[in-house]
Amino acid sequence: MNSKLNIGIIGAGRIGKVHAETIAFRLPEAHPASITDINPEAAAAVAARCGIAHVAASSAQILDDPDIDAVLICSSTDTHAGLIVDAARAGKHIFCEKPIAHSLERIDQALEAVDKAGVKLQIGFNRRFDANFARVRAAVAGGEIGAPQLLHIISRDPAPPPASYVKVSGGMFLDMTIHDFDMARFLIGSEVEEIYTAAGVMVDPKIGAAGDVDTAVITLRFANGVIGTIDNSRKAVYGYDQRAEVLGSASSSATANCYPNQAVVSTAESVRRDLPLNFFMDRYTESFVNELRAFVDAVRLDKPTPVTGIDGRIPVVMALAARKSHDERRPVRLAEISSLAHA
Amino acid sequence: MNSKLNIGIIGAGRIGKVHAETIAFRLPEAHPASITDINPEAAAAVAARCGIAHVAASSAQILDDPDIDAVLICSSTDTHAGLIVDAARAGKHIFCEKPIAHSLERIDQALEAVDKAGVKLQIGFNRRFDANFARVRAAVAGGEIGAPQLLHIISRDPAPPPASYVKVSGGMFLDMTIHDFDMARFLIGSEVEEIYTAAGVMVDPKIGAAGDVDTAVITLRFANGVIGTIDNSRKAVYGYDQRAEVLGSASSSATANCYPNQAVVSTAESVRRDLPLNFFMDRYTESFVNELRAFVDAVRLDKPTPVTGIDGRIPVVMALAARKSHDERRPVRLAEISSLAHA
Amino acid sequence: MNSKLNIGIIGAGRIGKVHAETIAFRLPEAHPASITDINPEAAAAVAARCGIAHVAASSAQILDDPDIDAVLICSSTDTHAGLIVDAARAGKHIFCEKPIAHSLERIDQALEAVDKAGVKLQIGFNRRFDANFARVRAAVAGGEIGAPQLLHIISRDPAPPPASYVKVSGGMFLDMTIHDFDMARFLIGSEVEEIYTAAGVMVDPKIGAAGDVDTAVITLRFANGVIGTIDNSRKAVYGYDQRAEVLGSASSSATANCYPNQAVVSTAESVRRDLPLNFFMDRYTESFVNELRAFVDAVRLDKPTPVTGIDGRIPVVMALAARKSHDERRPVRLAEISSLAHA
Amino acid sequence: MNSKLNIGIIGAGRIGKVHAETIAFRLPEAHPASITDINPEAAAAVAARCGIAHVAASSAQILDDPDIDAVLICSSTDTHAGLIVDAARAGKHIFCEKPIAHSLERIDQALEAVDKAGVKLQIGFNRRFDANFARVRAAVAGGEIGAPQLLHIISRDPAPPPASYVKVSGGMFLDMTIHDFDMARFLIGSEVEEIYTAAGVMVDPKIGAAGDVDTAVITLRFANGVIGTIDNSRKAVYGYDQRAEVLGSASSSATANCYPNQAVVSTAESVRRDLPLNFFMDRYTESFVNELRAFVDAVRLDKPTPVTGIDGRIPVVMALAARKSHDERRPVRLAEISSLAHA
Repeated sequence: MNSKLNIGIIGAGRIGKVHAETIAFRLPEAHPASITDINPEAAAAVAARCGIAHVAASSAQILDDPDIDAVLICSSTDTHAGLIVDAARAGKHIFCEKPIAHSLERIDQALEAVDKAGVKLQIGFNRRFDANFARVRAAVAGGEIGAPQLLHIISRDPAPPPASYVKVSGGMFLDMTIHDFDMARFLIGSEVEEIYTAAGVMVDPKIGAAGDVDTAVITLRFANGVIGTIDNSRKAVYGYDQRAEVLGSASSSATANCYPNQAVVSTAESVRRDLPLNFFMDRYTESFVNELRAFVDAVRLDKPTPVTGIDGRIPVVMALAARKSHDERRPVRLAEISSLAHA
Repeated sequence: MNSKLNIGIIGAGRIGKVHAETIAFRLPEAHPASITDINPEAAAAVAARCGIAHVAASSAQILDDPDIDAVLICSSTDTHAGLIVDAARAGKHIFCEKPIAHSLERIDQALEAVDKAGVKLQIGFNRRFDANFARVRAAVAGGEIGAPQLLHIISRDPAPPPASYVKVSGGMFLDMTIHDFDMARFLIGSEVEEIYTAAGVMVDPKIGAAGDVDTAVITLRFANGVIGTIDNSRKAVYGYDQRAEVLGSASSSATANCYPNQAVVSTAESVRRDLPLNFFMDRYTESFVNELRAFVDAVRLDKPTPVTGIDGRIPVVMALAARKSHDERRPVRLAEISSLAHA
Repeated sequence: MNSKLNIGIIGAGRIGKVHAETIAFRLPEAHPASITDINPEAAAAVAARCGIAHVAASSAQILDDPDIDAVLICSSTDTHAGLIVDAARAGKHIFCEKPIAHSLERIDQALEAVDKAGVKLQIGFNRRFDANFARVRAAVAGGEIGAPQLLHIISRDPAPPPASYVKVSGGMFLDMTIHDFDMARFLIGSEVEEIYTAAGVMVDPKIGAAGDVDTAVITLRFANGVIGTIDNSRKAVYGYDQRAEVLGSASSSATANCYPNQAVVSTAESVRRDLPLNFFMDRYTESFVNELRAFVDAVRLDKPTPVTGIDGRIPVVMALAARKSHDERRPVRLAEISSLAHA
Repeated sequence: MNSKLNIGIIGAGRIGKVHAETIAFRLPEAHPASITDINPEAAAAVAARCGIAHVAASSAQILDDPDIDAVLICSSTDTHAGLIVDAARAGKHIFCEKPIAHSLERIDQALEAVDKAGVKLQIGFNRRFDANFARVRAAVAGGEIGAPQLLHIISRDPAPPPASYVKVSGGMFLDMTIHDFDMARFLIGSEVEEIYTAAGVMVDPKIGAAGDVDTAVITLRFANGVIGTIDNSRKAVYGYDQRAEVLGSASSSATANCYPNQAVVSTAESVRRDLPLNFFMDRYTESFVNELRAFVDAVRLDKPTPVTGIDGRIPVVMALAARKSHDERRPVRLAEISSLAHA
């Protein structure tokens, strides 16, 4: 191989295109060598845009290519676990979008294959790499806030997905809250032991009809005593609402939303500003670059990845516990679902 | 009687003094006619400061005075219910500090006496009259936020009370959260049906030794479907933290802390401002005036008081439910404690 | 005299009423003994409201009263200088609203009388006592900002006065900017040596027809090298805009507007809050109390007043220089108008 | 030529590298075909980074290349005017960094050559393309603020340049304020007629020894009556301070600084956040992309460029007037320097 890390990209949809551009234009130490998609035209278009020499006919073709060092799995969720197993057996390092799978059994198979092969695995919890949440984490990890006591995460989408998507999404806890479960563990640096869910259907009755909820407050009790909440809504009319706050014994640290500009207009009616960034691609632009840079560094320097397979597994356990709590209207211990380590 | 409302003040401690000054200096329609305290010197000092002509030897002397139209009960909590009964029987209108009592039985006796006498009763939940919370309530009540969906109240004290006080306080839920229970009902305009408490001792082990908690997150389910949380801490190092946020279908409304000044200093290290107002007397100064103005108006114009006896009772039911939830580690329906109406 | 400072109030208009209430209700060390007004009914109404025993027939009656220790001159500007002379001759300490007079000759006569009598004189530049500006001053005076370099004052009224008032006001620089000239000296702690005015009529042509301007940017060069600006407008549609900012070698300190509440509403169109406090009585409420407290303390403790006669004179020199600069379209040195000391 | 715009880059220093990356990675309609620098290794390094096929031996080689459609002039200021003349004669469209030259004579020669050749010319006033200032401009241009009345621009650098640079920079007004002169014209949409400068040496005596100033307040009178100020400092300890505010008859619009994150830490001492973005490359990242996108569009679609040669010339006239005002301590009309149109 040449001195750059040669990367194959599986999936040329929205997130695959973002990662391809990052590899092509932002990370000099990596090279986008090959791309594939079930829609070959989508793959070809991204290849042309990003100067990717090879459009592969299938993921197998990428995994068989001895020049490929690592793969980015950006295909649909139901293919993640299988592709991790295949890529691990092929000896490729793996970056995989979240979630690994909706079932712990499939996740455990994937993680076992990774362990056996000794390859790197990083899960795409990009929000850890956002400057705002990273700053709050730094305040906790660096001791600036003292002993953490209370945590609040607000995570609201600007608009609900179509009901058709809701049906295959695994439900809000696996599809949306999964990011917040990861954020909670990341910010506090301790595991959650018990979850209590208060949820309902307030945004769209079709979501309820599909058996899901669209609004929730989830209470988390951590092993280190911290108590936290996650506030989720599928629809905040003012846009994408992404905040977190940690109270500690020495200070609190809270982060607010990001805006397209800092301009304020004062009229005869009110003092106002434009709405927060509305789309996750705009809100989290740099986090996608940062997470891939961290992955490339981990592979090149043979360091642990910052978001491991276990980090991908535990939020699924939490999502299952949150759902069970909602169904049974009682607090549920994560141990009722699974041990946090994989089999 | 003259055209001003003649008021007798029972209790010349911290809050009695504040109310006496308000009656004397801020409310032209009311006249502070008489004051009493178990410490006669305290009563005399406030009388001198506020131009109160009569220092009564006892509350009975005030209640017997035919020139007195209304009384302010500012004595210790354990005397509230008995004084309400006595004042009602004497035909005096009553403003009483919160809580009415720690026991529902005593509350119900008091409310029964008020009902029978047909006098006005207002409970001292002053925060409803704070301009910040009133603005959030206006956004909900006026339809500005559409259908309410999620509520968060942050209510943290700057420092814990001494352990000696904790023992007689009735516990954090009755002593401190009681304000937040009222605020939750006030902001949403619907009753809470179920409460789930996650609480712990994070601030001071002596509070735990006294059988109480000092940190809590309380989840509220309202009859109208709204889900809410109350975040309490006995100690936020940066000061008195009093915020609320309501998400609705048409907008959200959130209120932030109040500061002693609007100045920002930008140094080579950070951009910073002075800490929020640290003391409830400073933070809520105007709310104490506003609540008494509303009481005086209610009596003079024969209107309902804005915070009724039932408004004083329900937060006690909520506090008892919150404690039970903490003890039994499960959600507790308010109906398990009591019906919301009094006997 | 009794142990309280006995105060006579000359003028029962808007500001006289505010000061009477402060003396009556907020300053236990002072007693409002007497009040007078050219409109006796106005004086009687304030007397009733504030418990003032004596309504005097004239200012002379107050000045002749041996029980009066100090007077507050709250009458119209054209009477200030004469009343200062009279009060000084009567041996009364004097608090006088700004400006002392529009002519330096009359000011100097007044200050001479005060010097000769050895009484205290404080001028009503209340904004120095506002917590926001006081915080910026503290940052300068305490060394927090290092050596001051640049100053900006924004001072905009919510609405212009009627043209009839404009004609007798002495013009915007003497009527409105006078506060900002004082603020500039107060914040920087150095004298201005040269002024350059760029001004125009942008709000109301009637103001121009009356020979005045309604919008201005005034550049100040201070003896200590600081360069500053004052931004004035007679009409900011969003309300009363009162800000200041000082850049220093070690930090900057800036203060923002005050709002009736801290609530923010986020709709589908914008993130907004209610307009800033719109009326100077609301914006500067506490500053009026603080300035009188300082006056009462200065008299009782025989200390210098915090805003002296010279502090009242220099802003008039600055206003005359600002007008001259506007008329001649060139920078004008204050020395062209007058020495800063009085004759 | 192929369908992409082929671009030659003259100068591979800091800004040349930024523009090369933009052309290579962010603008699909443009192709970085060739690059040159007086330091061939610098050119080769950027070429390798950005996939530029040809490293030219000189600017002449680029201008002689018939495949090149347009050039970016990113070399030192003293070469700008000559290169514009050469490029215009070669029939290349031109993007040139600011300023065109320090002398109006050289600027006029350059603009004449451009006019004669009929090529496009855009000057690199990137701040117009910053989302914050663009939003304020939109409020003015779209009528949101009504008739503009007052303008304030704050523009402070985090640290002064070395004295060696100061000597060749043309002075602060030509080197630093030039951006603010452009911003003033851009925001208000009217020409400045008269300038008054109050300036001094407050940051570094070496700058004074080099004959320059490091701190200034510049008053601008516009043809449409607006009055504005520019506040410049070579050193704000808290970082790069870039703000603007326009008061209009219907509203005001103000924009604040940009920060690396939105996190706030509340300690027992203060409520604080990290310093604003400190480096112009970070603060204005997207503006550099936006300005080149606009240039590429103007060439490809044969539209006027958004920042013309005249837009490059007028700020130089303003800088010369500002200096003359400082030297002569009087307001200077731009007409004393030059007509605003070029010869």
